[in-house]
Amino acid sequence: MKKRILTGDRPTGQLHLGHYVGSLKNRIEMQHSHEQFVMIADAQALTDNYDHPEKIRSNIFEVMLDYLAVGIDPSKSTIFIQSQIPQLFELTFYFLNMVTYNRLKHNPTVKMEMQQKGMEETVTAGFMIYPVSQAADIALFGGEVIPVGADQMPIIEQTNEIVRRFNSVYHTDVLKEAQPLLSLCPRLPGADGKAKMSKSLGNALTLSASFKEIEEVVKKMYTDPAHLRVEDPGRVEGNVVFTYLDAFDPDLNRVKELKDHYQRGGLGDMTLKRHLMQVLENCVAPFRENRERLKQNPQMVLDLLQEGTSRAKKEGQRKLEEIKDAMRINYRLDHFSTMR
Amino acid sequence: MKKRILTGDRPTGQLHLGHYVGSLKNRIEMQHSHEQFVMIADAQALTDNYDHPEKIRSNIFEVMLDYLAVGIDPSKSTIFIQSQIPQLFELTFYFLNMVTYNRLKHNPTVKMEMQQKGMEETVTAGFMIYPVSQAADIALFGGEVIPVGADQMPIIEQTNEIVRRFNSVYHTDVLKEAQPLLSLCPRLPGADGKAKMSKSLGNALTLSASFKEIEEVVKKMYTDPAHLRVEDPGRVEGNVVFTYLDAFDPDLNRVKELKDHYQRGGLGDMTLKRHLMQVLENCVAPFRENRERLKQNPQMVLDLLQEGTSRAKKEGQRKLEEIKDAMRINYRLDHFSTMR
Repeated sequence: MKKRILTGDRPTGQLHLGHYVGSLKNRIEMQHSHEQFVMIADAQALTDNYDHPEKIRSNIFEVMLDYLAVGIDPSKSTIFIQSQIPQLFELTFYFLNMVTYNRLKHNPTVKMEMQQKGMEETVTAGFMIYPVSQAADIALFGGEVIPVGADQMPIIEQTNEIVRRFNSVYHTDVLKEAQPLLSLCPRLPGADGKAKMSKSLGNALTLSASFKEIEEVVKKMYTDPAHLRVEDPGRVEGNVVFTYLDAFDPDLNRVKELKDHYQRGGLGDMTLKRHLMQVLENCVAPFRENRERLKQNPQMVLDLLQEGTSRAKKEGQRKLEEIKDAMRINYRLDHFSTMR
Repeated sequence: MKKRILTGDRPTGQLHLGHYVGSLKNRIEMQHSHEQFVMIADAQALTDNYDHPEKIRSNIFEVMLDYLAVGIDPSKSTIFIQSQIPQLFELTFYFLNMVTYNRLKHNPTVKMEMQQKGMEETVTAGFMIYPVSQAADIALFGGEVIPVGADQMPIIEQTNEIVRRFNSVYHTDVLKEAQPLLSLCPRLPGADGKAKMSKSLGNALTLSASFKEIEEVVKKMYTDPAHLRVEDPGRVEGNVVFTYLDAFDPDLNRVKELKDHYQRGGLGDMTLKRHLMQVLENCVAPFRENRERLKQNPQMVLDLLQEGTSRAKKEGQRKLEEIKDAMRINYRLDHFSTMR
C-alpha cells in the first residue's frame, strides 16, 4: 500500500523557482512512490484575500498550468480545488468543537502571520480558525505524510491534537495522525538575497520566465559586494548566484570548480552570471514550452482539474461518511432504527 | 409574496409547555401567513453537546413528533435537519471572513452563556463561532422575519452586521437584513417559579405529559406562600398558577373572576389547581393523542422529515449559488471564461 500524501498551494499567484526547488520537484518524484493529493487551496487563500476573489479565481488556472508544466501527472496525482469539496467545510465545523479558542490564539504560525500582516486587532475569525480548516484537509484526505517547511510544523501539531481529541471523544480510531516530511533543501532566497521571493519585488522568476526575464533578474543578482575586480578573491557564502547554482546546476563538479575559481580570484561576476543564466534557461525552457502548449488548450486543462476534483470529492464523501459514522451522527432518514 | 420566516429548536430534549407558549403556538399561526422554515438545529446543538451525539440524534425524532403533534403542518412549513444541509457549513466558512474575532468575543449572548456554563477558559472555537453559523442559517434561507426572545436580539444584530459587511465587500445586495419578531408573551416560568424550565428539574411539562404528570407538577406549583387559609386573601402576582392560567385558559373572563375571588379570599389553592389541571389537560390531551398515533408510524414521520430536508437542501443550494455568484467564486469548470 502506497502512503497517502496531501500537499498543495494557495492560488495567490503564478508559482516561481522557489516553489520548484522547495516542493514541486519533490512532488514529481513522490507521485511515483506515494498516493498524492495536490490541493489548490482557494478557500484558505480567501481567508486573507476575501476582498480579492478574482485574484484567487484566476490563479487557480495559473497554478494548474504550473503543475502540469513541471510534470505533476494528473494520472498519478489527484489535483483538486479545495472549495469544490463541500465535505471539507462540514468537517471543519465539527473539528471546531475539538479545539479551544485559547489554543487557537496561541498557535505560533497564526501569531507570526498576524504580526507580519499587522492584523492583530482586526484579525477575522476565518483567519484565526484556518489551522482547523487545514486539519480538516489533512484528515479528510487521510494525509499520512505532509511535506512542510520548519515554520509549518505547528500545523501538523495542531492537526494531530485535533485527531487525538476526536478519537478520544468518539472512542474511535477512524482518524490517523499525520507525519511531517521536513523539506531538506533550504528555502531559495530572492535574487536580491532577501528571504521573501515575490514577483512584485522583481526578485523572483516564475516557472515560465522568458530568457530575457532570466537575464534581467540574474544581472541584478546579489553576489559579493567586496568583489570589485575580476582578479580579486570573492566570497561564495551568501552569494546568491552560487545558492542558485547549488539548487539548479545538475553538474555538481562544475559548480565546485566555479566556487574554487571564484574564491581564488580571476572569475568575474558577469561570466559567472552568464553561466547561471544558461543553467536556469535549461531548467525553465521545457516548463515554458509546456505551459505555452497547455495554454493553447485551456479546456483540456480545466477538464483535468475537474476530473481530479471529482475524484477528490468522491474520496472526501467516503471519508466523511466514515467520520460521521464514528460520531454517530450519520442519520439515515430512510431507516428509523438509525435515528434512535 | 409571503414573507420568509426562519425558526427552529436545538434537539436537546422533548419540547415542553414553555416552547408551546413561547414559539410553537405562534408558528402554527404564522405558517398560514408566511413561508415558514423550521430548522432542527442539531449541528448547533453539537457545539455544546459534541460529546453526547446520541442525545442530539434521538431528540431529532422527538422534536419532529412534537412539531407534528401540536399542528405544525409539513405541507405548509418546511421542517428540516440543519446538519443535512451542507451549504450551511460552506456559508459559515465564508461568513467567518466577515467578522473579527474580537467582535465574536464580545457577543453578549455568547458571553452570558459562557458564564452560565462555566466554560470561560475552555470554550471551544465551535461554541465561539456559533453566532456566525446562525447568521448563515438565516442568510441561506433568506429569513426576513426571525422570532426571538429579548435575550436573543444580539443574534439578529450579529447577522445583520455580517449581511451588511458581505454586501459591502462584494458590492452586492444578494443578502437581506433580517427583522426580529419579538415574542409578545413573557417567558413561561417553571412550576417552581424559577425562570429555567427543564424536565430534569421536575418543573416542566412536556407536550405529551400524562394527566398524572400534570397533576403531580401542578400540585407542587408555586402559589402565594402567605396564603395559608382558604378564607384569606391571596396574591395573584408571582403566583405561577395564575401565570399558567393566563397562558392556557381560553376563557379570559373566567380567569379574571378567579383572580378576583382569590384576591378577595375564599378560593383555596387546591380548588384553583384542580381547575388548572383541567385546563392543561384540555390543551395537552390532543397533543398527547396525536403524538401517540404518530409514534405508531415512525417511518412516516421520518419521511416527512426527509421531504422537508430535501426541499430545504434544494433551496439552500439555489441560494448558495446566488451568494457564490456575488462573491465571484462560483467557478464553472466546464466553461473556461468563468475562470478568468
